[in-house]
Amino acid sequence: MTDPLHTFFHPRGVAVIGASSNPTKLSHGVLRNLVTHGYRGPVYPVNPRGGDMLGLQVYASIAEVPDPVDLAVIVLSADRTVAALEACGQRGIQAVVLIASGFGELGAGGREREAQLREVAHRYGVRFIGPNCVGVVDTYAPIDTTFIRTMPGQGMIGFVSHSGAVCGGTMDWASAVGVGFSRIISLGNQADVDVADALDSLATDPHTRVVAAYVEGLPDGRRFVEAARRLTLHKPLVVLKAGRTPSGTRAVTSHTGALAGADRAFQAACRRAGAIPVEDLEQLVDAAIALAYRQPLTGPRIAILTNAGGPSAVGADALDRQGLRLVDLSEETQARLREVCPPGAMVGNPVDMLGGPQPDHFADGLEVLLAAPEVDGVMVVFVPQAIMPPHDVAVAVGQARTKRHRNGDVRATRLGLRSVGEHEKPVVCCISGGGGIRAAARALHAHAVPHYLTPARAALGLGALWRYGHVRAHPVPDPEPVTGVDRERASAILHPHTPTLPHSHTPTPPHSHTPTLLLDPQAGAEVVAAYRLCVPPSGLASSAGEAATLAGRIGYPVVLKRVAPGVVHKADRLHPGDVGGVALDLADADAVREAFAQVVQAGQRAFVQRMAPKGLEVIVGAQRDPQFGPLVMFGLGGATVEVLRDVAFRLAPLSATEAREMVAETAAGRLLAGVRGQPPGDLDAVVEALLRVGQLMADLPEVTEVDMNPLIVGTAGKGAWAVDVRIVYRSSNNSYHN
Amino acid sequence: MTDPLHTFFHPRGVAVIGASSNPTKLSHGVLRNLVTHGYRGPVYPVNPRGGDMLGLQVYASIAEVPDPVDLAVIVLSADRTVAALEACGQRGIQAVVLIASGFGELGAGGREREAQLREVAHRYGVRFIGPNCVGVVDTYAPIDTTFIRTMPGQGMIGFVSHSGAVCGGTMDWASAVGVGFSRIISLGNQADVDVADALDSLATDPHTRVVAAYVEGLPDGRRFVEAARRLTLHKPLVVLKAGRTPSGTRAVTSHTGALAGADRAFQAACRRAGAIPVEDLEQLVDAAIALAYRQPLTGPRIAILTNAGGPSAVGADALDRQGLRLVDLSEETQARLREVCPPGAMVGNPVDMLGGPQPDHFADGLEVLLAAPEVDGVMVVFVPQAIMPPHDVAVAVGQARTKRHRNGDVRATRLGLRSVGEHEKPVVCCISGGGGIRAAARALHAHAVPHYLTPARAALGLGALWRYGHVRAHPVPDPEPVTGVDRERASAILHPHTPTLPHSHTPTPPHSHTPTLLLDPQAGAEVVAAYRLCVPPSGLASSAGEAATLAGRIGYPVVLKRVAPGVVHKADRLHPGDVGGVALDLADADAVREAFAQVVQAGQRAFVQRMAPKGLEVIVGAQRDPQFGPLVMFGLGGATVEVLRDVAFRLAPLSATEAREMVAETAAGRLLAGVRGQPPGDLDAVVEALLRVGQLMADLPEVTEVDMNPLIVGTAGKGAWAVDVRIVYRSSNNSYHN
Repeated sequence: MTDPLHTFFHPRGVAVIGASSNPTKLSHGVLRNLVTHGYRGPVYPVNPRGGDMLGLQVYASIAEVPDPVDLAVIVLSADRTVAALEACGQRGIQAVVLIASGFGELGAGGREREAQLREVAHRYGVRFIGPNCVGVVDTYAPIDTTFIRTMPGQGMIGFVSHSGAVCGGTMDWASAVGVGFSRIISLGNQADVDVADALDSLATDPHTRVVAAYVEGLPDGRRFVEAARRLTLHKPLVVLKAGRTPSGTRAVTSHTGALAGADRAFQAACRRAGAIPVEDLEQLVDAAIALAYRQPLTGPRIAILTNAGGPSAVGADALDRQGLRLVDLSEETQARLREVCPPGAMVGNPVDMLGGPQPDHFADGLEVLLAAPEVDGVMVVFVPQAIMPPHDVAVAVGQARTKRHRNGDVRATRLGLRSVGEHEKPVVCCISGGGGIRAAARALHAHAVPHYLTPARAALGLGALWRYGHVRAHPVPDPEPVTGVDRERASAILHPHTPTLPHSHTPTPPHSHTPTLLLDPQAGAEVVAAYRLCVPPSGLASSAGEAATLAGRIGYPVVLKRVAPGVVHKADRLHPGDVGGVALDLADADAVREAFAQVVQAGQRAFVQRMAPKGLEVIVGAQRDPQFGPLVMFGLGGATVEVLRDVAFRLAPLSATEAREMVAETAAGRLLAGVRGQPPGDLDAVVEALLRVGQLMADLPEVTEVDMNPLIVGTAGKGAWAVDVRIVYRSSNNSYHN
Repeated sequence: MTDPLHTFFHPRGVAVIGASSNPTKLSHGVLRNLVTHGYRGPVYPVNPRGGDMLGLQVYASIAEVPDPVDLAVIVLSADRTVAALEACGQRGIQAVVLIASGFGELGAGGREREAQLREVAHRYGVRFIGPNCVGVVDTYAPIDTTFIRTMPGQGMIGFVSHSGAVCGGTMDWASAVGVGFSRIISLGNQADVDVADALDSLATDPHTRVVAAYVEGLPDGRRFVEAARRLTLHKPLVVLKAGRTPSGTRAVTSHTGALAGADRAFQAACRRAGAIPVEDLEQLVDAAIALAYRQPLTGPRIAILTNAGGPSAVGADALDRQGLRLVDLSEETQARLREVCPPGAMVGNPVDMLGGPQPDHFADGLEVLLAAPEVDGVMVVFVPQAIMPPHDVAVAVGQARTKRHRNGDVRATRLGLRSVGEHEKPVVCCISGGGGIRAAARALHAHAVPHYLTPARAALGLGALWRYGHVRAHPVPDPEPVTGVDRERASAILHPHTPTLPHSHTPTPPHSHTPTLLLDPQAGAEVVAAYRLCVPPSGLASSAGEAATLAGRIGYPVVLKRVAPGVVHKADRLHPGDVGGVALDLADADAVREAFAQVVQAGQRAFVQRMAPKGLEVIVGAQRDPQFGPLVMFGLGGATVEVLRDVAFRLAPLSATEAREMVAETAAGRLLAGVRGQPPGDLDAVVEALLRVGQLMADLPEVTEVDMNPLIVGTAGKGAWAVDVRIVYRSSNNSYHN
């Protein structure tokens, strides 16, 4: 893969259109940063007034700028930006950064102006970042097109953000404690270059070892997922998404006008993408610094080395909440620790050196723990005391980890330890306190040990390493195509009045303002049957006599349900377990006729279906998210599904691995596995049902919602039956089929 | 209430036993802090070498120290501490701080030495703090008996900690950003003065407006709960407890030797106590600084005022997770905002002043929002930009809130606003960034506005105010005594071979090494019947004939269950829904005889019970926690209780209010309320059952566990039936009754 943003980071010359000599203006800041932050190519200020700025000749227009010039930064107001972009296109510039706000985030008028940008860019083959962004930084190239005064130090974190303020704020406080960055990409409204482009770019960047992303809207969520999948095969990705709650969604919409999706869809997207979701800016950086320095954790067994029992206990709780745990140290390890720790130290885990350890004690204890085969990672927790400066401990810890990395065997031999080979184990370090902490943090970061102010944040760092270890060890497989489905048949049932197009495999979804319709239960059953889900034989009857005949044909006992025509609007929930209108377990024709008379009213029909065998009732469903597209759902079925709130979601279509994972996450899955002597249910049949519903959603974009509640699951090998299939869809011709 | 620790904070003279002139020693640090940190009474160094230190005369022994001397700080090693405490007792000193470690935290030997301390203290009527602590601080008295170099500034936070390292670390970083404290109490092993004493002391302290507690073991959990209840009637309490997960429990046990209880018990204790639990040191301080400055939030409606849309959106998500929400601003408020905000500002919520607001814009915008009747609290989110120093914004925000507080009507009038009266609304402020932030934070704290580095932490501060608002508005009532119970009858069933003691109301629990026994189902039913729970009529039968006769007497249909003798060990779980050994719905004598033959084996008996009416199956249970005593449990019943993991706990005995709350928290409660047209269940009967089981646990300390699974709940007014009662208990005479 080549870097899609190569020109933005390695232009042979940069023009600043709208450059100003007034040092309080942002347009001066951009010019100043290009000149003073290390960029080695020519910089061309463009301003109709001419003259010179910062010792550079000012050009009256972009047309006059000489070669080489590959990149332009336009720092003009919104109303002048479109024309300036066009001028760049005419000048043959291929990469443009647009700083101005006043576009899509303002609503309809702004969106129109944004569309003009896209039109111009398309016409000239220009790629642009923004509008409404703060520009890009590469600390190695180096280049800095932003107006932010401080350029961050070199580091291994690639930072992508929809929000310029998040870029600025994060750079500021992260830099203050010595956290460096490789690249910063401020996307703004992402009218052209989007998060997916940024992830692809950072995937190719050799200096970027971890990507931290702050995202707001993801209008093409699947593009994000695919780019993230490419990235996480090689580098970890941490994502903070705003707009995951009702209040947050409101704030994002007000801020950006972006379309909001459901949080469950974002979570499903992160699982597919191998991305690590976090909930705050602090967590975003805390996770990224751990991932930037270290190999992933390959196991959950952690040792704590400390001079402070209380904070270590808090850290141990936090480790547990991250899915990690304190390891039992072997007798051998404990004996080694006794040799190197101060007298009286507690050599269990946490290894508590009590009040008086010296920096060397930390270094030697860390060596022993890193050499212990039972330890997967180490958390050092140091609380400064009156006498020993935190900086000395930080240097000792940092040097110990560096020595072990570079020259592990030498020191291990000196301490009488056997080496465990080249595998590098993560170390994180919590040093709490006020004064002196910044120096200690810088010393640790300089030795590639992430520093945290509290034990819980250190545990979050290890948790991120553990999660990425899982992503690397168990990459999510590609969705599996399911066989034997009859897509054309399903489509024909949905559109009986439209000629089917058997060879079209890229159906266009109907417009979202088309009303949603509820398919009658017989048609619903036939649609899922076309996807080879097991459905008991069934049919529709308009009279008691017809119902009895039908029942005789499909076989007793049967269930009879009233079918009333009606349109379902999207805001309505499907109501599983509606009371009334259903007669169960009808054993003969008389019972069917009687039930028809009681249940079905004039103008209605009856849905008659053979009773399914007994089994565990689960729900298999599907929905369509505005950002991430179709999702498959699984949970415990029946009337209680909304009460229990215990369901799992994945993007559709999906793989059998994902289907098994989602089952295992739920109470329904634990019941399926067999509890208290009950035999396990047919997990394979459930997985098959999930895959097939996922394929159905992928194939039929007009279907907005599927609910099979219940899917009745027999014991292993006995299959699963969809007995109540509700399908909501958009019909382009507005007909209602009942 | 008088301050139980008055003498520790206001002694008329202080002796330092073991004072040293070596400035690298802790024993010098204690003396130095007493002398230099403002204490105004006489300080007496005690050291057999005599001479003088820091210009003070040194006494060879505590016996020689002249009056007045009320407090001694003993800074000797553990082996010399007991004798020194005795010498203090002989000298008539009433309050002692013991710094040395080497006691209970070391195990059996240390515990014995700790018992000696208690014995000596009891003999002389001395109260002591420690051992293994860093002493106490009162910034107003002032007095500082610790060796920590920096004394925190004056503030409104009272800090209690089992860990000295947590004290030291927290003081250090909190002080660095201008967070002050009223008192610090380092409890160490709390061999005498415990958390409850500390809470009672801080309840009386006029300078303490919020208490932040770091706790490890709570050996007498109920004493803590009662002291916390007294405190939270007047002041908020935030609690960080270590040892809430398996790894954390391991760390606490290794660190302190303290007994660990279940996390659900701690959570139930916090609910009863009105305490706000947090999970990290940062959260402990974040919550405390919000609670120290402000009145509680009286509603969840928050406005955000910002120059940064992205961080505000993250903050809005975080508000939602705290149970708060962005409010819809009225037309009037929006109009006022348009007048005072810069042109182009978005005056929805978040109120986004975009790139260019000046400090005055923040001040005026904040005024408008605080005056708006629809707003309950405000979060200011400022991301520093190149030009405006964060300190200026901090001062503007702080002054706006101070002016409004002191002189609200004047400024409100100037802005054309109507005042909403004396009610003060909370303001929190997030200013992110590195350089310049400390000055901004100090300026905010000086104006009683809590400062946070990230929007999520600011939201946590508001969340703590909201939770304390709830505690104040809805204090947890005292447990309600239940009437009509027959405790003696229940006790007689548990101990049929022991003469009952009808007038003893303070039974001594049997030793924990007594084996636990499972009561047979008939005896179990009779025990809960003695507490007036509804149980269908039942009995035990040894033969098929007896079973049929019994069934005829109690009425058909009946259920028949096999009863096999056996001891239940504590580690075993009770197994609801065991398969086998049960025959349901037996309609006549023949069916009963046949069932007996099939189900009951030689040497066993049958439990025969009238079938209960149909209804929702819930579980009502109870357990006993080593720290907090009996807990009552509620959840969805049947075989799935462990699979669903959806249960609520409260301390027993409990109030009807608490019982209703715990029901409402669960899926079972939502089902009871009636879903999808199903009629609501008999909530009152469930509440009654919870109260009565709670009373049973309080009355009968030998009962370790009760499970009623299921309790079958009828529709409203129809009651609830306990049909499968399992009671595990300790019998002092080791007999098994079956």
